[in-house]
Amino acid sequence: MNPQLTLSPEVAGVRLRRADRARQMADVLRRQVMNGLLDEGVLPSEPALANDFGVSRNTVREALELLRREGLIERIPGVGTVAAQPKYLHGIDQLQGLAETLPGPVRNEVRVAGLVEAPAAVAHRLGLTPGEPVTHLERRRFADDVPLSLDLTYLPADVGQPLLDQDLAGRDVFGLLEELTGRSLGTAEIVLEAVAADRHSAAILEVPAGAPLLMLERLTRLDGGRPVDLEFVRFRGDRITMRGTVRRTPEEEINP
Amino acid sequence: MNPQLTLSPEVAGVRLRRADRARQMADVLRRQVMNGLLDEGVLPSEPALANDFGVSRNTVREALELLRREGLIERIPGVGTVAAQPKYLHGIDQLQGLAETLPGPVRNEVRVAGLVEAPAAVAHRLGLTPGEPVTHLERRRFADDVPLSLDLTYLPADVGQPLLDQDLAGRDVFGLLEELTGRSLGTAEIVLEAVAADRHSAAILEVPAGAPLLMLERLTRLDGGRPVDLEFVRFRGDRITMRGTVRRTPEEEINP
Repeated sequence: MNPQLTLSPEVAGVRLRRADRARQMADVLRRQVMNGLLDEGVLPSEPALANDFGVSRNTVREALELLRREGLIERIPGVGTVAAQPKYLHGIDQLQGLAETLPGPVRNEVRVAGLVEAPAAVAHRLGLTPGEPVTHLERRRFADDVPLSLDLTYLPADVGQPLLDQDLAGRDVFGLLEELTGRSLGTAEIVLEAVAADRHSAAILEVPAGAPLLMLERLTRLDGGRPVDLEFVRFRGDRITMRGTVRRTPEEEINP
Repeated sequence: MNPQLTLSPEVAGVRLRRADRARQMADVLRRQVMNGLLDEGVLPSEPALANDFGVSRNTVREALELLRREGLIERIPGVGTVAAQPKYLHGIDQLQGLAETLPGPVRNEVRVAGLVEAPAAVAHRLGLTPGEPVTHLERRRFADDVPLSLDLTYLPADVGQPLLDQDLAGRDVFGLLEELTGRSLGTAEIVLEAVAADRHSAAILEVPAGAPLLMLERLTRLDGGRPVDLEFVRFRGDRITMRGTVRRTPEEEINP
């Protein structure tokens, strides 16, 4: 984007090579930090890390500084360098609501709940006619009293309106939908992106403007194929990580 | 994080409600823009959008401004508001290399290729002893001459060293691994995060420092289970999107 920011390998000097090594080292360390795989929760000492990675002490310091700026580690005098906060792991191998996939409780602040006329794009995704009523929810979701995500949801009114009498503050929409319709959910199409938080979303999620967010769009269908739940979810990048398993050969080809 | 940034619904006035509506509207429009679902590539006029979404012209302008700042749309005098650039869709339903999942050609700039002694964390993931030699690759990957990602890869030396004589600039590692080992790849464990670009990664990817990146960690196994490829990939958030399908009931339970 900005040509002044472009560095070519040809102009690379010692500083650039060290920046490369520091980033490579930080990449390897960040998973250990995030998954709590440190011995007694403390990173090895700088000399031990320098020896393990075959780099200079300056490179170690630069790598740790990258992790510190990401908010993953902090230095505690007398103890050493420790993991600052875990990120929550959100599974993507299976269609699950936030409270189903996280280990602890989730609390929802319902910001919007009501009927609106479906804009053309919403109607199209949900198999409705533009202008038909749709149920419109917006929830801010918390774990450990920290905001994790801002969720915007559209549902066809026949399945969405009965939701409004339920415990939306304490429960996932997915479980409620299955109870109220008497049907299981089937599949969902998901799209994941990294986006910068606009000023307003940032304020709601209590992060600085421009902070990285993991944005999920998800269209969920009932078993049988009817689309019933169109969501736009902004997750805080510093709090949520998606984890899954992918196969080289899709299962349909193994079990046709 | 910064308590001054926190707004509560209680202090919300007209401006806050408009900001909410503008964001909600932008969320619905962004998929149409990204997937090229606009009539003749042009967004409807401001009055048509105001009518479709049941909002004021000011709210429409605020929603379009959010999409413009994300780099998704641009205004062309005499034509209207059009999609600025498509994002590439990277499938996650199946284990694929970048060139396998993108529609057009991918070019790789090999920045690092050689042997290093495995740091403890790399050895652990690849089932090796710390200090054993591993092949170490770093590639910057381009489509349409725009950098899409920066990929750091570690492979056990017995499978990694033969790669170095191959066409790493033109081909994916996955296909080469299958040819050289004579085996198919099996599964991969993936972790996806949204992170801010540090200054050095930003320069390499030609984005501003702090730009949102989609970060992928992927540990790939040969059919049979041996881990052979540990990757840390930074994708430009403005150029790459992950797309997949998830099921409420995992397939293993349907086809045991």
